[in-house]
Amino acid sequence: MLKNDKYLLDKIRIVLINTSHPGNIGSAARAMKTMGLAKLVLVKPKLFPHEKAFEMASGAEDVLRHATHVDDLREAIADCNLILGTSARMRAIPWPVLTPREMANHITQEYMRGVDGEIAILFGCEQWGLTNEELHQCHYHIQIPANPVYSSLNLAAAVQIICYELQLMSIIGAAKVSDVAPVNAWDYPLASNKDMELFFSHLEETLVDAEFLKQTAPRQLMTRLRRLFLRIRPDFMEMNILRGMLRAFQEKMARRISSN
Amino acid sequence: MLKNDKYLLDKIRIVLINTSHPGNIGSAARAMKTMGLAKLVLVKPKLFPHEKAFEMASGAEDVLRHATHVDDLREAIADCNLILGTSARMRAIPWPVLTPREMANHITQEYMRGVDGEIAILFGCEQWGLTNEELHQCHYHIQIPANPVYSSLNLAAAVQIICYELQLMSIIGAAKVSDVAPVNAWDYPLASNKDMELFFSHLEETLVDAEFLKQTAPRQLMTRLRRLFLRIRPDFMEMNILRGMLRAFQEKMARRISSN
Repeated sequence: MLKNDKYLLDKIRIVLINTSHPGNIGSAARAMKTMGLAKLVLVKPKLFPHEKAFEMASGAEDVLRHATHVDDLREAIADCNLILGTSARMRAIPWPVLTPREMANHITQEYMRGVDGEIAILFGCEQWGLTNEELHQCHYHIQIPANPVYSSLNLAAAVQIICYELQLMSIIGAAKVSDVAPVNAWDYPLASNKDMELFFSHLEETLVDAEFLKQTAPRQLMTRLRRLFLRIRPDFMEMNILRGMLRAFQEKMARRISSN
Repeated sequence: MLKNDKYLLDKIRIVLINTSHPGNIGSAARAMKTMGLAKLVLVKPKLFPHEKAFEMASGAEDVLRHATHVDDLREAIADCNLILGTSARMRAIPWPVLTPREMANHITQEYMRGVDGEIAILFGCEQWGLTNEELHQCHYHIQIPANPVYSSLNLAAAVQIICYELQLMSIIGAAKVSDVAPVNAWDYPLASNKDMELFFSHLEETLVDAEFLKQTAPRQLMTRLRRLFLRIRPDFMEMNILRGMLRAFQEKMARRISSN
């Protein structure tokens, strides 16, 4: 592998959420390590650390030992600016969907365009995958093409396929990357996920202030707005502008209320 | 999926040789079924049928129930004309090697050229993979690109990646195949593996007759000859010609000996 590849793979974290079986955590660590990935984040695993995880890791115990534990998904992805969630099911509100190969191409293209930053790939629990709330944190959903009548991949098998495509990206992509200097580089870094979440809270607050969003049935509206702004991938400066706009609306609305 | 794809996937059998852990057989069946493959052949599994296999199959029990058991690899592949073996290690005598993606492209291209027939993909036991003897049955070796310092994929994980690429081939490849009628179709079908093995035995016998091959240290020579003829992929008519040549040599040599 070239130097660039390793650099790309090091930016990617695998996030396992609410995993039920510690053996699957170990198998996922093994799958990651075979493909050159090392950053594992565990969000509220049911049982961890656990001997079954270390048994199944079978040589990839270092990945488990360096894994980060957090209690909340937001904490796991706060410093990321590209978040992808694996999902087998189609959801009520469709999200931009990539196949694993398209995901790898997408990451390579972003990198070649000069977009840099941490990347998270989310895997839900074994029973039902990612919840809608978790999926709404994502810029893209990843769907592994599977047998329409039996699409039930084991968690570690899904991690294996995703990491396989990432590793190929790092081998194939780096050849491209090393030939081509980043073109059309962006002027500002992308907003972090934490900035995005502060923005969404601010947006929601502003919409409630404006009585556009009724607190009683708020979900679909905010979901659609999340999808919209996540698709935009605003940079740091654009985010400042958006937040500034919201503040301006709020101040204006407050003044009208007090002047009434 | 289009009709053609299913046709391609149905021609492919996954052959697990001397598998130690029945759980891995079940996981492999699950991996196959998620990717639309159904033909599983077990060569001397250590424990099968076994409840652990059915437990790990988790919805793919039909693949296990329809699996074929045989005692000998040759029996498993006798009617195949393309045999590929997965291997993590480089061997003393290098064989033509494909990545899983190249494998999928290769199979698609053969199909588009009009080559048809059964295909076998071999996986060795968990401890050391395919033996040299097993690898020498193959036209190509498949190497899954992996972390140079930790390339130890779990058996079912390797099956998952191979079947994933085959399934993508069937989806992507069929689009190509359905647009393009087979061009440059071959005039005769390829020789079967059984024909090839009869040929190799005949060749060896003839070389011993000729005292070119010393029975005491025969391995490297026959290995190199296997690799050579397997690469040629002779058709039925060419095979007849090769066999005819050997017979002619043998008869000629026998006549010289008796005339001495």
